[in-house]
Amino acid sequence: MALKSSPLVQGVLTPKVVGALLVGLLLGTLVFGVVLPSSARGAASSGAYQRPYPLPHQYWARTDEFYVFASGGQQGGLYVYGVPSMKYLSEIPIFNPDQAWGWTPEEPKVRKMLTNPWTEEVVTRGDTHHPSLSRTNGVYDGRWLFINDKLHPRIARVDLDTFRTGQILWLPNGNGGDHGLSVSPNSDLLVQNFEHEQVPDPAITQHLGLTVDLLKGPYVGAFSGVNIASDGAMSNAWQVWGPWGFDMVRIGWGKSDGWIVSTSYNTERALSAVPMFARDHDYAFFWNIASIRKAVADGKYVTTKQAPDVPVVSWKDVEVYVTPIPLNPHGIDISPTGKYVMTSGKATTLVVAIDFEKTLEAIQNKRFIGDDFGIPILDPDAVRAATMDLGMGPTHIEFDNQGYAYVGFFVDSDIKKVPLGEPYTRLHNKEPWKVVDVLPAHFSVGHLLVPGGDTAQPYGKYVISMNKLTKDTFLPHGPLESENHELYNIEQVPAQLIDQMPLGPETHYSQAIPASLVAPRVKTTYTEARAVAAEKPRVEYDYAAREVRVHMTVVRSFFTPDAFTVPEGWKVKTRLVSQETAMDISHGFALDGYNLSVSLDPGEVKDVEWVADKPGVHWFYCIWFCSELHMEMRGRAIVVPQADWTPDKETHLAS
Amino acid sequence: MALKSSPLVQGVLTPKVVGALLVGLLLGTLVFGVVLPSSARGAASSGAYQRPYPLPHQYWARTDEFYVFASGGQQGGLYVYGVPSMKYLSEIPIFNPDQAWGWTPEEPKVRKMLTNPWTEEVVTRGDTHHPSLSRTNGVYDGRWLFINDKLHPRIARVDLDTFRTGQILWLPNGNGGDHGLSVSPNSDLLVQNFEHEQVPDPAITQHLGLTVDLLKGPYVGAFSGVNIASDGAMSNAWQVWGPWGFDMVRIGWGKSDGWIVSTSYNTERALSAVPMFARDHDYAFFWNIASIRKAVADGKYVTTKQAPDVPVVSWKDVEVYVTPIPLNPHGIDISPTGKYVMTSGKATTLVVAIDFEKTLEAIQNKRFIGDDFGIPILDPDAVRAATMDLGMGPTHIEFDNQGYAYVGFFVDSDIKKVPLGEPYTRLHNKEPWKVVDVLPAHFSVGHLLVPGGDTAQPYGKYVISMNKLTKDTFLPHGPLESENHELYNIEQVPAQLIDQMPLGPETHYSQAIPASLVAPRVKTTYTEARAVAAEKPRVEYDYAAREVRVHMTVVRSFFTPDAFTVPEGWKVKTRLVSQETAMDISHGFALDGYNLSVSLDPGEVKDVEWVADKPGVHWFYCIWFCSELHMEMRGRAIVVPQADWTPDKETHLAS
Repeated sequence: MALKSSPLVQGVLTPKVVGALLVGLLLGTLVFGVVLPSSARGAASSGAYQRPYPLPHQYWARTDEFYVFASGGQQGGLYVYGVPSMKYLSEIPIFNPDQAWGWTPEEPKVRKMLTNPWTEEVVTRGDTHHPSLSRTNGVYDGRWLFINDKLHPRIARVDLDTFRTGQILWLPNGNGGDHGLSVSPNSDLLVQNFEHEQVPDPAITQHLGLTVDLLKGPYVGAFSGVNIASDGAMSNAWQVWGPWGFDMVRIGWGKSDGWIVSTSYNTERALSAVPMFARDHDYAFFWNIASIRKAVADGKYVTTKQAPDVPVVSWKDVEVYVTPIPLNPHGIDISPTGKYVMTSGKATTLVVAIDFEKTLEAIQNKRFIGDDFGIPILDPDAVRAATMDLGMGPTHIEFDNQGYAYVGFFVDSDIKKVPLGEPYTRLHNKEPWKVVDVLPAHFSVGHLLVPGGDTAQPYGKYVISMNKLTKDTFLPHGPLESENHELYNIEQVPAQLIDQMPLGPETHYSQAIPASLVAPRVKTTYTEARAVAAEKPRVEYDYAAREVRVHMTVVRSFFTPDAFTVPEGWKVKTRLVSQETAMDISHGFALDGYNLSVSLDPGEVKDVEWVADKPGVHWFYCIWFCSELHMEMRGRAIVVPQADWTPDKETHLAS
Repeated sequence: MALKSSPLVQGVLTPKVVGALLVGLLLGTLVFGVVLPSSARGAASSGAYQRPYPLPHQYWARTDEFYVFASGGQQGGLYVYGVPSMKYLSEIPIFNPDQAWGWTPEEPKVRKMLTNPWTEEVVTRGDTHHPSLSRTNGVYDGRWLFINDKLHPRIARVDLDTFRTGQILWLPNGNGGDHGLSVSPNSDLLVQNFEHEQVPDPAITQHLGLTVDLLKGPYVGAFSGVNIASDGAMSNAWQVWGPWGFDMVRIGWGKSDGWIVSTSYNTERALSAVPMFARDHDYAFFWNIASIRKAVADGKYVTTKQAPDVPVVSWKDVEVYVTPIPLNPHGIDISPTGKYVMTSGKATTLVVAIDFEKTLEAIQNKRFIGDDFGIPILDPDAVRAATMDLGMGPTHIEFDNQGYAYVGFFVDSDIKKVPLGEPYTRLHNKEPWKVVDVLPAHFSVGHLLVPGGDTAQPYGKYVISMNKLTKDTFLPHGPLESENHELYNIEQVPAQLIDQMPLGPETHYSQAIPASLVAPRVKTTYTEARAVAAEKPRVEYDYAAREVRVHMTVVRSFFTPDAFTVPEGWKVKTRLVSQETAMDISHGFALDGYNLSVSLDPGEVKDVEWVADKPGVHWFYCIWFCSELHMEMRGRAIVVPQADWTPDKETHLAS
């Protein structure tokens, strides 16, 4: 068989779609959006948001109201910054090693997390997509942040007391191309979508009753359910497989409690880009969570050789409905009471508000207009609260605390503010579903956020636009431009641009949480070292294992021992014990000429293993300017050539 | 032999030194420096440096005056930000892979640069220390930036037209522990110091006439000379070896033209920290560059097996002098005319100004007070312009355009402003060498910079303090705190704090260059793709080599081909050709389930090689949100199980 490459243009699109596509493709990001002249946007108000000069010390710590956790995309972790300072505070490395922030596979704990449990490969490239902050009763609680990797089937938990990755869970049966991630209102369930269609274990396709052809397709899709224990530990719970891959997802709350809503932009089951736009609509899905659990409880599942303990359920055995939505949707987002499920067709100008109360009625009343692969199709007229024609390239939607939705537009390069229907009209007293403000963005909005804007309790006040293009916003810095996060005050109309922030590539979604929910629980030191503090520094030689074990204490500004010998070719197991108890006093262990450098935070214990394959003297040194004696804080790993080794060259410390 | 670990306290230090050490060690960074009450530091001036609200678009691009290139330390590359915006603009990855900024060993060009030429190991951990911007006639010219790795003996050239690493040069005969780096006034020579003492090839120690003992020491030290061609290409020129390791270095200009000045903090040749403080002084070194070149020309050198083409010169065969300076010096810095060489003892309170004109006279008049390893010791009284007792823990010194030096203090946590002597008194009209201003820092100054402050033409106006501790300056973000760069306006006394900027770990030195010297030459697109644009997309099967070659074009928003087959186990050579010509339109190629993700900037061509060891369908996808069709911009690498492969499964594109 000779596979044919897709033609760039194909006659399968409706005129309206072609119009939207053409503008998107041909003008694309050259359309810089609706920029109102600044005189029309209100005069500068008082000193709010002006950086004072001279700057009082701690000004930024005292004035920042929110932390933003921004997915890094191909950066593989998270960026953290403050609002309204727009000061980059930290990075949290997750799937990609990052020595700056002390996250490297030189440390066995990190190495293990990065290791694919089925192939045993250490996987150091990831693509973080959707951060999802833990919540209690639908409101952020500041305990954890969950985030997924698009490149590999894995989810991480970040612990907000340390700003460190605490767990990486690998999902079975797929090989990547994951997209949406959502956490349940009480943080006991995560749902992760496989966006890219798969050719899974034949046990799965057989259970689905679907055939796949490796070369010709069509393939099948899935989403995973992951349980979260009360201590944050994640475990694979179940998977649901069906004919389609899935894009974005939210687990409902309030009016939509107990349901998963998700989208698929490729209900065509196509294998290349243009045919994925063939239908003039795609689907929003409504999955009943209890029905999935019941299918598992009833034994209606199969398992695979790879994951014998993870039940794989067929879409046929669960309660699921679809309703048509504008083609190639991206975001699907839920209003604070859980009532409205908003979604948009990114290759159209249309944004849809689905009323979940009406949806439940329509299900009860069987307001179906047919079925697709056996799934009842809900009549759009029976479930929609509104269909809005708002602008080119709508993507994601967030909500504030005043009853407004904010919709980002990639092609228009703006965010539109829209009043919601009942029960929010009492908050805003406006005609629902009509644009009341347009926030110009620079340029091409991907995601956007309102603090708490995906919860039962948005905090409002700000919108951040995560723009995909920066162009001439900042000083030029090469063909690879930074991203641009823009902060707006949305307390009045028109909204006001507070600041623009260049940020590393490439944020997908971000969430903002009040500083008061996180700052008090942040640790300044680790306490592990206390447990091993009683153990004396020592060097042990194990001739049987050909291994040297070095138990080393680290404190300003000495390594103890600061010299040890090792026979060439032996393994060295180095345990580093920081005896620091003061905040911000980090040390490190880098070894000249070896591909090895680890960071050691106050009170931290780290194990580092390396093979002494290079004879000679190799200084190890502290990588942090920790005191005025920092440069002298170094010691020697003396790798004795194998031929010269005699046991009297062993290092023994004075007791 | 049983090596003994150094005791934490040892009776080898003089009382004054002990005092300084004790404060440094015991109080250390708890001493927060001299913070004047803000009322005493002058009222806020006009709107300068206030972020306007609302913010006009492009405000930051229009108001930034300087680029700062800050070494990332263990981050392995450079941070780039703007001044006075203090906006993080970019990172330039160098020694450590960084997928965010598109620098990964998946790309053979990068892989080759990271490969140690002698061990063939791909070395992915580095520790960047001293950026050195290229210059013409002693003034920044905006062409390149050179930077070294402390962990491995290598130097990189960053090209400022692309903000990308263009070359990594490995230095022979040492295994790391490098420190200072300096570029000559016309960018034809680099000097890099080995701070850590080495046990080199016996050919070297034999040439030096020094013996080393691997276990007991003492070891020997070196610095490397690297030629820079007119196109920026670096090549190893020579090395000078001697009894000591060397710390900081500057190549002189103006009054000090033709000389290298450097320091050693371990003239004790000690093997552990405390004995490195045994002497109450260490040395500044003055090396005559012509004498090194003459030794090479005269054949007074040896070479090693590792580097048969790099002459190794003994310190005995070159013209070199030392003069005592306060113990354990760190920075050594040269004033704009090249007249003053300033250095400080970091474990003391003393800062020394050496007058290079007096030094040359003293050399001519043989004002020696002895010798050390045959090197004449210049009488301090004959060479010093001033010895200042300024505060605890002096580190580095920079210079402005008004005749002032700025000295950073780690323990005092401040920067002191000191008027220089003649010929600068006509600029400032002050009594030289007396503190005129104290800039409080938050906290513990490591390096500091004045724009152009290490050149013949400082730009003045600002000082940036690169603080080693952040503590409570920003919202807390875990045991591992960010760094803090503080920007001061130094146009008046007292200096005013403009802003504080959290930045990733851990800057050593930084340099600031006028935006006008860099911005006009920054490329927004590459042009390589034009050369190969005529080549059609294709897939070729090479059964002899068991290799599939895929020539793929990439443009919004399609890969061509968007599907190809490959027999399991074969190598895939993928050439990606970006056909984008618009700025900021990057794409990428990430492959589901493979440890592979590369970024592709506009007009760029990248080769990616991978082994198809996992059968099944693997979607490749664009990692940049490049258009509204971005998510659909994906294609299939179909890895056919070896047993199922038949040549009719080959992919051939329609012509």
